[in-house]
Amino acid sequence: MAGEVKHLCLARFKEGAAVDDVLRGMADLVAAMDTVKSFEWGQDVLKQETLTQGFTHAFCLTFASADDLAAYMAHERHAAFAATFMAALDKVLVLDFPVVLAKQPPPPTA
Amino acid sequence: MAGEVKHLCLARFKEGAAVDDVLRGMADLVAAMDTVKSFEWGQDVLKQETLTQGFTHAFCLTFASADDLAAYMAHERHAAFAATFMAALDKVLVLDFPVVLAKQPPPPTA
Repeated sequence: MAGEVKHLCLARFKEGAAVDDVLRGMADLVAAMDTVKSFEWGQDVLKQETLTQGFTHAFCLTFASADDLAAYMAHERHAAFAATFMAALDKVLVLDFPVVLAKQPPPPTA
Repeated sequence: MAGEVKHLCLARFKEGAAVDDVLRGMADLVAAMDTVKSFEWGQDVLKQETLTQGFTHAFCLTFASADDLAAYMAHERHAAFAATFMAALDKVLVLDFPVVLAKQPPPPTA
Protein backbone atom coordinates (compact mmCIF):
# COMPACT_ATOMS: atom_id res chain seq x y z
CA MET A 1 0.00 0.00 0.00
CA ALA A 2 3.05 2.28 0.27
CA GLY A 3 2.59 5.52 -1.57
CA GLU A 4 -1.19 5.36 -1.97
CA VAL A 5 -2.92 8.72 -2.09
CA LYS A 6 -6.62 9.43 -1.64
CA HIS A 7 -8.63 12.22 -3.24
CA LEU A 8 -11.67 12.69 -1.02
CA CYS A 9 -14.55 14.86 -2.08
CA LEU A 10 -17.65 15.67 -0.03
CA ALA A 11 -20.58 17.23 -1.80
CA ARG A 12 -24.13 18.41 -1.57
CA PHE A 13 -26.07 18.62 -4.81
CA LYS A 14 -28.20 21.57 -5.81
CA GLU A 15 -31.92 21.01 -5.66
CA GLY A 16 -33.04 19.66 -9.00
CA ALA A 17 -29.53 18.60 -10.05
CA ALA A 18 -29.43 15.53 -12.29
CA VAL A 19 -27.67 13.48 -9.61
CA ASP A 20 -27.94 10.13 -11.41
CA ASP A 21 -26.44 11.61 -14.57
CA VAL A 22 -23.56 13.12 -12.60
CA LEU A 23 -22.91 9.83 -10.78
CA ARG A 24 -22.94 7.95 -14.09
CA GLY A 25 -20.54 10.50 -15.57
CA MET A 26 -18.20 10.05 -12.65
CA ALA A 27 -18.28 6.25 -12.89
CA ASP A 28 -17.58 6.47 -16.64
CA LEU A 29 -14.69 8.87 -16.12
CA VAL A 30 -13.12 6.75 -13.41
CA ALA A 31 -13.54 3.53 -15.40
CA ALA A 32 -11.75 5.15 -18.35
CA MET A 33 -8.81 6.49 -16.33
CA ASP A 34 -6.12 3.90 -15.61
CA THR A 35 -4.52 6.21 -13.08
CA VAL A 36 -7.53 5.72 -10.76
CA LYS A 37 -6.78 2.56 -8.79
CA SER A 38 -10.12 2.30 -7.03
CA PHE A 39 -13.23 4.36 -6.40
CA GLU A 40 -15.77 4.18 -3.63
CA TRP A 41 -18.61 6.51 -2.84
CA GLY A 42 -21.73 6.69 -0.78
CA GLN A 43 -24.65 8.71 0.41
CA ASP A 44 -24.77 9.77 4.05
CA VAL A 45 -27.32 8.03 6.27
CA LEU A 46 -26.47 9.93 9.46
CA LYS A 47 -28.41 13.02 8.42
CA GLN A 48 -27.36 15.02 11.46
CA GLU A 49 -26.72 18.51 10.18
CA THR A 50 -24.45 19.37 13.14
CA LEU A 51 -22.18 16.48 12.17
CA THR A 52 -22.50 16.41 8.39
CA GLN A 53 -22.55 20.19 8.00
CA GLY A 54 -24.98 19.67 5.16
CA PHE A 55 -22.81 17.34 3.08
CA THR A 56 -24.71 14.38 1.70
CA HIS A 57 -22.26 12.48 -0.51
CA ALA A 58 -18.68 11.26 -0.15
CA PHE A 59 -16.51 10.29 -3.12
CA CYS A 60 -13.16 8.66 -2.50
CA LEU A 61 -10.67 7.97 -5.29
CA THR A 62 -7.49 6.03 -4.57
CA PHE A 63 -4.28 6.44 -6.56
CA ALA A 64 -1.10 4.38 -6.43
CA SER A 65 0.99 7.53 -6.10
CA ALA A 66 0.87 11.32 -5.88
CA ASP A 67 2.05 11.37 -9.52
CA ASP A 68 -1.00 9.36 -10.61
CA LEU A 69 -3.28 11.76 -8.76
CA ALA A 70 -1.57 14.74 -10.39
CA ALA A 71 -1.90 13.11 -13.82
CA TYR A 72 -5.61 12.48 -13.19
CA MET A 73 -6.25 16.05 -12.05
CA ALA A 74 -4.43 17.45 -15.09
CA HIS A 75 -6.22 15.18 -17.59
CA GLU A 76 -8.61 16.89 -20.00
CA ARG A 77 -11.33 14.32 -19.30
CA HIS A 78 -11.17 15.17 -15.61
CA ALA A 79 -11.32 18.89 -16.37
CA ALA A 80 -14.38 18.39 -18.59
CA PHE A 81 -16.17 16.34 -15.95
CA ALA A 82 -15.17 18.64 -13.08
CA ALA A 83 -16.94 21.56 -14.74
CA THR A 84 -20.20 19.55 -14.97
CA PHE A 85 -19.76 18.21 -11.44
CA MET A 86 -19.10 21.57 -9.80
CA ALA A 87 -22.07 23.11 -11.61
CA ALA A 88 -24.35 20.51 -9.99
CA LEU A 89 -23.15 21.20 -6.43
CA ASP A 90 -23.94 23.84 -3.90
CA LYS A 91 -21.34 22.65 -1.39
CA VAL A 92 -18.04 20.91 -1.94
CA LEU A 93 -15.02 20.03 0.15
CA VAL A 94 -11.84 18.29 -1.01
CA LEU A 95 -8.90 16.75 0.84
CA ASP A 96 -5.94 14.90 -0.68
CA PHE A 97 -3.92 12.73 1.63
CA PRO A 98 -1.27 10.00 1.63
CA VAL A 99 -2.94 6.95 3.14
CA VAL A 100 -1.91 5.60 6.54
CA LEU A 101 -3.37 2.10 6.74
CA ALA A 102 -3.67 1.77 10.52
CA LYS A 103 -5.78 -1.39 10.51
CA GLN A 104 -5.63 -3.74 7.57
CA PRO A 105 -8.83 -5.41 6.38
CA PRO A 106 -8.86 -9.18 6.90
CA PRO A 107 -8.04 -11.23 3.79
CA PRO A 108 -11.18 -12.06 1.78
CA THR A 109 -12.64 -15.45 2.63
CA ALA A 110 -13.27 -17.86 -0.23
CA MET B 1 -18.13 -6.07 -0.03
CA ALA B 2 -21.93 -6.10 0.23
CA GLY B 3 -23.15 -4.30 3.30
CA GLU B 4 -19.94 -2.41 4.13
CA VAL B 5 -20.46 0.91 5.87
CA LYS B 6 -17.94 3.70 6.30
CA HIS B 7 -17.68 6.15 9.18
CA LEU B 8 -15.80 9.14 7.80
CA CYS B 9 -14.56 11.88 10.07
CA LEU B 10 -12.82 15.08 9.00
CA ALA B 11 -11.07 17.11 11.65
CA ARG B 12 -8.92 20.08 12.45
CA PHE B 13 -7.01 19.98 15.71
CA LYS B 14 -6.82 22.87 18.13
CA GLU B 15 -3.52 24.65 18.29
CA GLY B 16 -1.38 22.95 20.89
CA ALA B 17 -3.46 19.75 20.88
CA ALA B 18 -1.47 16.59 21.60
CA VAL B 19 -2.09 15.27 18.10
CA ASP B 20 0.29 12.30 18.33
CA ASP B 21 -1.33 11.16 21.57
CA VAL B 22 -4.79 11.40 20.04
CA LEU B 23 -3.70 9.47 16.95
CA ARG B 24 -2.14 6.78 19.13
CA GLY B 25 -5.33 6.58 21.20
CA MET B 26 -7.38 6.16 18.05
CA ALA B 27 -5.11 3.43 16.69
CA ASP B 28 -5.26 1.60 20.06
CA LEU B 29 -9.05 1.86 20.18
CA VAL B 30 -9.49 0.61 16.64
CA ALA B 31 -7.02 -2.26 17.15
CA ALA B 32 -8.99 -3.38 20.21
CA MET B 33 -12.39 -3.27 18.54
CA ASP B 34 -13.19 -6.33 16.44
CA THR B 35 -16.17 -4.55 14.91
CA VAL B 36 -13.79 -2.21 13.04
CA LYS B 37 -12.87 -4.04 9.85
CA SER B 38 -10.26 -1.57 8.64
CA PHE B 39 -9.03 1.91 9.38
CA GLU B 40 -7.25 4.40 7.16
CA TRP B 41 -6.40 7.99 7.84
CA GLY B 42 -4.26 10.76 6.47
CA GLN B 43 -3.23 14.36 6.69
CA ASP B 44 -4.25 16.69 3.88
CA VAL B 45 -1.50 17.84 1.52
CA LEU B 46 -3.72 20.02 -0.67
CA LYS B 47 -3.78 22.90 1.82
CA GLN B 48 -6.18 24.98 -0.22
CA GLU B 49 -8.53 26.54 2.29
CA THR B 50 -11.26 27.10 -0.31
CA LEU B 51 -11.32 23.34 -0.97
CA THR B 52 -10.47 21.89 2.45
CA GLN B 53 -12.55 24.43 4.38
CA GLY B 54 -9.89 24.27 7.05
CA PHE B 55 -10.03 20.51 7.65
CA THR B 56 -6.60 18.92 7.90
CA HIS B 57 -7.17 15.25 8.75
CA ALA B 58 -9.43 12.50 7.41
CA PHE B 59 -10.22 9.34 9.38
CA CYS B 60 -12.08 6.53 7.67
CA LEU B 61 -13.31 3.45 9.51
CA THR B 62 -14.88 0.57 7.62
CA PHE B 63 -17.43 -1.81 9.11
CA ALA B 64 -18.83 -5.03 7.71
CA SER B 65 -22.37 -3.86 8.42
CA ALA B 66 -24.46 -1.03 9.84
CA ASP B 67 -24.94 -3.19 12.94
CA ASP B 68 -21.18 -3.33 13.52
CA LEU B 69 -20.95 0.46 13.17
CA ALA B 70 -23.81 0.90 15.65
CA ALA B 71 -22.12 -1.50 18.10
CA TYR B 72 -18.87 0.44 17.79
CA MET B 73 -20.55 3.80 18.35
CA ALA B 74 -22.38 2.48 21.40
CA HIS B 75 -19.29 0.85 22.96
CA GLU B 76 -18.00 2.43 26.16
CA ARG B 77 -14.41 2.46 24.85
CA HIS B 78 -15.57 4.51 21.88
CA ALA B 79 -17.45 6.91 24.13
CA ALA B 80 -14.39 7.38 26.34
CA PHE B 81 -12.14 8.05 23.36
CA ALA B 82 -14.66 10.30 21.61
CA ALA B 83 -14.67 12.69 24.57
CA THR B 84 -10.86 13.04 24.39
CA PHE B 85 -10.94 13.31 20.61
CA MET B 86 -13.62 16.00 20.44
CA ALA B 87 -11.85 18.04 23.13
CA ALA B 88 -8.75 18.17 20.90
CA LEU B 89 -10.62 19.46 17.83
CA ASP B 90 -11.84 22.82 16.77
CA LYS B 91 -13.60 21.55 13.66
CA VAL B 92 -15.21 18.20 12.96
CA LEU B 93 -17.44 16.71 10.30
CA VAL B 94 -18.87 13.19 10.17
CA LEU B 95 -20.61 11.21 7.45
CA ASP B 96 -21.74 7.57 7.63
CA PHE B 97 -22.46 5.85 4.36
CA PRO B 98 -23.03 2.40 2.85
CA VAL B 99 -20.15 1.84 0.46
CA VAL B 100 -20.69 1.72 -3.29
CA LEU B 101 -17.54 0.17 -4.74
CA ALA B 102 -17.63 1.67 -8.23
CA LYS B 103 -14.13 0.64 -9.26
CA GLN B 104 -12.48 -2.31 -7.62
CA PRO B 105 -8.77 -2.16 -6.81
CA PRO B 106 -6.64 -4.59 -8.85
CA PRO B 107 -5.71 -7.80 -7.02
CA PRO B 108 -2.43 -7.45 -5.12
CA THR B 109 0.60 -8.66 -7.07
CA ALA B 110 2.84 -11.23 -5.44
